[in-house]
Amino acid sequence: MSSLFLILFIISHSLCVFVNSAGEVNDSLTLLWPLPAEFTFGNKTLSVDPALSLVVGGNGGGSGILKLGFDRYREIVFKNNHGVLALNTLGGSRQSYDISKLRIVVESADEDLQLGVDESYTLFVVKNDGKSIVGEATIEANTVYGALRALETFSQLCTFDYGSKSVQVNKAPWYIKDSPRFAYRGLLIDTSRHYLPIEVIKQVIQSMSYAKLNVLHWHVIDRESFPLEVPSYPKLWNGAYTKWERYTVEDAIEIVNFAKTRGINVMAEVDVPGHAESWGTGYPDLWPSPSCREPLDVSKDLSLDVISGILTDMRKIFPFELFHLGGDEVNTTCWNTTQHVKQWLEERNMTTKDAYQYFVIKAQEIAISKNWTPVNWEETFNTFPSKLNPKTIVHNWLGSGVCPKAVAKGFRCIFSNQGVWYLDHLDVPWDVTYNADPLEGITDISQQKLVIGGEVCMWGETADTSDVQQTIWPRAAAAAERLWSRREVTSHGNSYATALSRLQYFRCLLNRRGVQAAPVTNFFARSPPTWSGSCYDQ
Amino acid sequence: MSSLFLILFIISHSLCVFVNSAGEVNDSLTLLWPLPAEFTFGNKTLSVDPALSLVVGGNGGGSGILKLGFDRYREIVFKNNHGVLALNTLGGSRQSYDISKLRIVVESADEDLQLGVDESYTLFVVKNDGKSIVGEATIEANTVYGALRALETFSQLCTFDYGSKSVQVNKAPWYIKDSPRFAYRGLLIDTSRHYLPIEVIKQVIQSMSYAKLNVLHWHVIDRESFPLEVPSYPKLWNGAYTKWERYTVEDAIEIVNFAKTRGINVMAEVDVPGHAESWGTGYPDLWPSPSCREPLDVSKDLSLDVISGILTDMRKIFPFELFHLGGDEVNTTCWNTTQHVKQWLEERNMTTKDAYQYFVIKAQEIAISKNWTPVNWEETFNTFPSKLNPKTIVHNWLGSGVCPKAVAKGFRCIFSNQGVWYLDHLDVPWDVTYNADPLEGITDISQQKLVIGGEVCMWGETADTSDVQQTIWPRAAAAAERLWSRREVTSHGNSYATALSRLQYFRCLLNRRGVQAAPVTNFFARSPPTWSGSCYDQ
Repeated sequence: MSSLFLILFIISHSLCVFVNSAGEVNDSLTLLWPLPAEFTFGNKTLSVDPALSLVVGGNGGGSGILKLGFDRYREIVFKNNHGVLALNTLGGSRQSYDISKLRIVVESADEDLQLGVDESYTLFVVKNDGKSIVGEATIEANTVYGALRALETFSQLCTFDYGSKSVQVNKAPWYIKDSPRFAYRGLLIDTSRHYLPIEVIKQVIQSMSYAKLNVLHWHVIDRESFPLEVPSYPKLWNGAYTKWERYTVEDAIEIVNFAKTRGINVMAEVDVPGHAESWGTGYPDLWPSPSCREPLDVSKDLSLDVISGILTDMRKIFPFELFHLGGDEVNTTCWNTTQHVKQWLEERNMTTKDAYQYFVIKAQEIAISKNWTPVNWEETFNTFPSKLNPKTIVHNWLGSGVCPKAVAKGFRCIFSNQGVWYLDHLDVPWDVTYNADPLEGITDISQQKLVIGGEVCMWGETADTSDVQQTIWPRAAAAAERLWSRREVTSHGNSYATALSRLQYFRCLLNRRGVQAAPVTNFFARSPPTWSGSCYDQ
Repeated sequence: MSSLFLILFIISHSLCVFVNSAGEVNDSLTLLWPLPAEFTFGNKTLSVDPALSLVVGGNGGGSGILKLGFDRYREIVFKNNHGVLALNTLGGSRQSYDISKLRIVVESADEDLQLGVDESYTLFVVKNDGKSIVGEATIEANTVYGALRALETFSQLCTFDYGSKSVQVNKAPWYIKDSPRFAYRGLLIDTSRHYLPIEVIKQVIQSMSYAKLNVLHWHVIDRESFPLEVPSYPKLWNGAYTKWERYTVEDAIEIVNFAKTRGINVMAEVDVPGHAESWGTGYPDLWPSPSCREPLDVSKDLSLDVISGILTDMRKIFPFELFHLGGDEVNTTCWNTTQHVKQWLEERNMTTKDAYQYFVIKAQEIAISKNWTPVNWEETFNTFPSKLNPKTIVHNWLGSGVCPKAVAKGFRCIFSNQGVWYLDHLDVPWDVTYNADPLEGITDISQQKLVIGGEVCMWGETADTSDVQQTIWPRAAAAAERLWSRREVTSHGNSYATALSRLQYFRCLLNRRGVQAAPVTNFFARSPPTWSGSCYDQ
């Protein structure tokens, strides 16, 4: 039977409750999140050696990222072994395991991480057939980033069996052939409304890798605070909340590098000309006036000079080809009510709308001159679509229907409809997040290809270190499967039957890995559990 | 001036707001939590070498725990250096730092960690006086556990300066002489109402060490689930919620060892005869009847046999001399309404109250035979004080006034008055937690000495992985200072003036270390921040 048929067959058989009242678990489910593109499995249980060794091949086999990834996943998979069994097996009486080696073949040594990087992989977990001395699992990928996705899938196949106290792969043999549906699978964090320490951003990035998300959209600065160091304009981070709520250039580089080793790109955002009041703490001339502080003063060269300085400095930090220039929610009242700006507009016969367009286009030119592809929030497209640089990627947020319009005009688009994918909307339940599709309303295949993916947005007004992770998870995971897995699967049938149990399992997997993912079925996101109970039921 | 006078002087000068409206920080505060017993400081700023090296001395200087602790704190202190500066200094052009070595002298090589272990230390941070080649900070302690407390204090003195991009100690020279007010400074976690993964328990333990708490009271089993493996009675963990929500013996040992390297004891609890319904999932004979399942069947030998088996197995895991036997909330209705139990009582001319006492005393005898000191919830003392073994430590929870009665009868006592120190009471603000004192109502000094300390309790009905840390923190820190620091200091003046700013700073320190501590001043604990703002203001 075809893989797709098999998947639909599996899903149609997962209607039954995951944990029954006696606490028994329904083992017939495929406990993978997000579901791979194609997979088949059997009915054997294989044991996995706690001293699992890595065997590499291919031009990219020697990758340091690969080795780090293997070590990271070995620690996750054998967490309950506490290093004890691995040590025990070093003695003479070596126990026999079905899987003692993980062979990873990476075709290419190119570790450039850009939009559309090949994340495909195949994964085989088969019992030793007697021909070789030890059993193996095998991963094949074109890039190290595909291999990282495969390692995540492999780690989800491995479960600790509390009876035998060993790690097992159930329902082997597994044949998995996988690749993402969308190239761009993002999560926004907002470090202006609340500063998030480096350690916390790393926790977020690490957890993203579990759901195969691959872009951290770092909304680093906004109206409320300016935490980032900009060497060209060193007073900008005077706009930080305090002298401690800051990121050095080195901090930002550390985050980018940390993300890269997880196959995750960091897309920074400089939101102009609105959302920029904090810039003026260090450079008050950027305000139209001390009493009217936004948008940036369009009449002064300083405004574009500072943007140019920021982007020059940021280019050294952020190698990702996409850069976000914001452009949303620009209230131009200050331009009309501040005398010198008003005069500047009049001299040029410009309306404030013209000036908004002028500013956005200038910022795009700066970004493009630095070899960046500009991303802008949808208001720019909604207001002056024909003026935007054709390279522009339109970032939807206000509602549905924008990506269809943008791709019809030849722009690329990112889907983040706030009604379904804004994580700060706490009244959006998991299934509403899950059932939103970036291609909704787009039937033309060539236009569909212009939708590069989607992004869930964790705006920070009420999300700080204490609650950011349980506001992100588990709903970000619902979007992650939508973005990774085949539409025929994620849109087939009732998601309460096809996805809920697996999502509950994935939420508990996040918990086991130390991530503060919240209960899945509470109506309000990030709510505490209503009462005692199993993680797998809540 | 005397140290105490100095401390009071400092506190009286910390009335001013911590962060003013311009985001400037009040640097006159002593940003240590909990406050040391005695300290003086100056007005110099010293730089700390990112390649800070450890020099050890004393019989205990070679301790592995010490080395691990130093490495852990070095990582915390130099988090923003990203290993870069340390590497740079390996070259020829070595920058000069005021503090390049941390000398730690540990008198004793004895690493036994028991109640009352010597946690005292002295810490000197002084600028190189020109006599020695490199500057040093010095720690002296009688045990490695005192040295760990000193390392925590040292790490709090070190702050990253974003201007010079280096770690600094402000207000040097520092002379600190410190020791805890109480020997027992506990936090209860409840893994029965919600299973907490190993990784999460480790996060809790690690965060406890930041506040100098030293006992993890592990309420491992209860009515709702029985997650722990008991080799003598292997069906007991059939009472786990699911086959995955379990702890192996090895898991438990791992937790004990992890805690020990942080100077934290683990006190396990087996709560009998109530709160034990989950035991009967594997051994239904422990229930009075299938329809009346608690307390444990007092009429059967099996009940005490199983307790004995559990305690025998647990003794191999938990070396701490204290063991908690519960004894709270025993509703004996099932004993009176189940025919065979009722008959057993009648044959012995026992009331249900007699049987409750009989059961608790028998359990105490088993624990004592295993060289454990029994701890019991206060109902046992409230009901039959004269029958309790004199070694019993009475654990207060119902309200105030119990410790005074218990110590008047010669028992030792732990303070956990639910109105102030139950963390699941979300309507208790930080200052109510802070201002509760374990010695309230006890004036006799010899009786005061019987109060070994206190414990904040994180009951798990609505606390799982997603919210346990922000329910614990920051209020557990309020209790931690109460338990560590001198009463003359913590009870002096208005805590909004003496403690709030420091607690807000400590909460942000926890955040920087990746701990999900909640805003301090929200009326309901663990509430998200109400809106954008600085961590230091919320």
